Amino acid sequence: MTNNDNAPFSFRLIATDGMARRGEIRTPHGTVRTPAFMPVGTQATVKAMYPDQVRELGSDVVLGNTYHLMLRPTAERVARLGGLHKFMNWPHTILTDSGGFQVMSLAQLRKLSEKGVTFQSHVDGQKIEMTPERSIEIQQLLGSDIQMQLDECIALPAPREEAERAMRLSLRWAERSRVQFEAMGGPGRGQALYGIVQGGTDPELRLESAGMLSQMPFEGYSVGGLAVGEPQEVMLKTLEITTPAMPADKPRYLMGVGTPEDILESVARGIDQFDCVLPTRAGRHGLAYTRYGKVNLKNARHADDPRPLDETSPCEASNRYSRAYLHHLVKAGEGLAAMLLTWNNLAYYQQLMQGIRDAIEAQTFEEFRARTRADWAKGDIPPFASR
Amino acid sequence: MTNNDNAPFSFRLIATDGMARRGEIRTPHGTVRTPAFMPVGTQATVKAMYPDQVRELGSDVVLGNTYHLMLRPTAERVARLGGLHKFMNWPHTILTDSGGFQVMSLAQLRKLSEKGVTFQSHVDGQKIEMTPERSIEIQQLLGSDIQMQLDECIALPAPREEAERAMRLSLRWAERSRVQFEAMGGPGRGQALYGIVQGGTDPELRLESAGMLSQMPFEGYSVGGLAVGEPQEVMLKTLEITTPAMPADKPRYLMGVGTPEDILESVARGIDQFDCVLPTRAGRHGLAYTRYGKVNLKNARHADDPRPLDETSPCEASNRYSRAYLHHLVKAGEGLAAMLLTWNNLAYYQQLMQGIRDAIEAQTFEEFRARTRADWAKGDIPPFASR
Repeated sequence: MTNNDNAPFSFRLIATDGMARRGEIRTPHGTVRTPAFMPVGTQATVKAMYPDQVRELGSDVVLGNTYHLMLRPTAERVARLGGLHKFMNWPHTILTDSGGFQVMSLAQLRKLSEKGVTFQSHVDGQKIEMTPERSIEIQQLLGSDIQMQLDECIALPAPREEAERAMRLSLRWAERSRVQFEAMGGPGRGQALYGIVQGGTDPELRLESAGMLSQMPFEGYSVGGLAVGEPQEVMLKTLEITTPAMPADKPRYLMGVGTPEDILESVARGIDQFDCVLPTRAGRHGLAYTRYGKVNLKNARHADDPRPLDETSPCEASNRYSRAYLHHLVKAGEGLAAMLLTWNNLAYYQQLMQGIRDAIEAQTFEEFRARTRADWAKGDIPPFASR
Repeated sequence: MTNNDNAPFSFRLIATDGMARRGEIRTPHGTVRTPAFMPVGTQATVKAMYPDQVRELGSDVVLGNTYHLMLRPTAERVARLGGLHKFMNWPHTILTDSGGFQVMSLAQLRKLSEKGVTFQSHVDGQKIEMTPERSIEIQQLLGSDIQMQLDECIALPAPREEAERAMRLSLRWAERSRVQFEAMGGPGRGQALYGIVQGGTDPELRLESAGMLSQMPFEGYSVGGLAVGEPQEVMLKTLEITTPAMPADKPRYLMGVGTPEDILESVARGIDQFDCVLPTRAGRHGLAYTRYGKVNLKNARHADDPRPLDETSPCEASNRYSRAYLHHLVKAGEGLAAMLLTWNNLAYYQQLMQGIRDAIEAQTFEEFRARTRADWAKGDIPPFASR
């Protein structure tokens, strides 16, 4: 929790329980307790939240999206304004992705080559070239603490040849990213660059990718290309094969994942860091996460329910506003609905992470996992009228 | 500031300076320092604000819109859930309007008669009858501390006969509203009912309306039918004629007003209470109010400006986030833009009210008025690049 300004990036394991790991990442902007959930601040804001709230819920790190920020307000502008931490009033750790994933999913007229990818901005139609070198340059301008190599992320399922081609390209881009990161002085500023394991759902490809990356001097390692359409069991199976091949003394980050269950099960398979838009996006669509699963506030069953989402939660958004009020706000299209439900959802996610961390330290992770899954299976409280 | 639970409605003057009045309203849910600005919580929420924030800015009272609440979630539902204070987590004073103004401006297929007005709901098309009695019934179900009589508010300019007809109808409705309010036990619960002075911009009609209403036992008096399209000077002229004819020992509420200048000038003419959607609505459209006037954050001049809206403001939204960041949030359509700008705007409005109250108590209102107007005339700080 302490702010170790200017401490170089480091990672230490505090405890393990089975494959689950309890650790601590230090960056120039603070300490990140792992396993960690990183709220997504796509456009330099975690949607519908004040930065202080995000912090108070126990978030040690947020994610910024390189693709969005390079287009607007532009990385050069953020740099002129003193960097992303200052720009968005988040003096704690920031992780940025490479921009590659959004180039693939949001940009138009993409053209991929060995050199990189060219595309048209979805904001103003401008033609832009993204290379491994340029991605690092942008992340350096943003000044993030943890940076990602540019990789190619393909949709699943995919033919083996396609997965192999993208994996090998990503390895060559990893190399180029590292060269650029060091040339720009990232290590000297205590920043981290993570390599990204690819290979689709093919065990051989994943092992080869993890093995090759492990020989490169990355500060951490990501698992990319999962949670892109495949069933959960396929993702978990792939993790089981992949994480043991990743360096044990470096943090492992599963990109873009996921539901509370995805997170719990991935921790059980050795993952340390997560990011996902789910809790924030769901909050803007009337969906609440609680320890008893998902609650759809749009549902008329809540219209006369004076009970809060979860009276035992320490979060105000969860324990103080009635379901009837939340239902009304959602139906009326009020901004406060998104504000309260996003707050509730991030609170629940961070409570889950704290529970996970405590359990690993206490060597009771399996018990915690079973109890948590039992609570989810129990489901939401019965409708108010039927009590 | 103290919460005098269950104290009946009362009003006392603390000081006067010229026509300007410094007073204190007590209601069953607290004390309201006047002159008071009442943020508008149309659908049981002051848009893009947590209720605690609204309170912390110095708001002693918020306004709820009877028309919106009767349609959704319905007054009956709010009553079942324990009343509007509990429903919206606002344990302080609440004022509700009669619903009449929104019936006239939002509802479809309106039909006006001596009995009341029938219309179609803009939410579900349902046909609804609104009478003076029904308006009070709804406000009683909501449980507001300060309630309004149903009146007919016409658009300006209007022919004298039209203004006179509406004024006389409003007087008869005032009588019926009072009967209903007393029959339902409003006074016994310490609640207040305000009569509404109408009469367009005709001095005779205004004086007649004020005179007739003064003979009825209302706890307070509103000035209705202004700020509906007429020039500011016409409004102020009408106030100059109207307020002296209103009881000096009762609060005077100018409905739906207004800009900071409207408020300052209306206080100078004897008004004690104001409500307006301007600070909240402007906040959702990229507009900020500061002591140097209005700032349009959409303007590209702010894109590289590291300075906050007003570094001398005690409000975090005003002193901590750069104009460049606010510009970015507005351009990117982020919810945090509305959250921060609404916060800034309500903070400025409440700072203005505090300044007004302090000045009246210190008998320096004229000085405060001149200084405040001079600051507005000065305008925003020069663009950053040109410094």
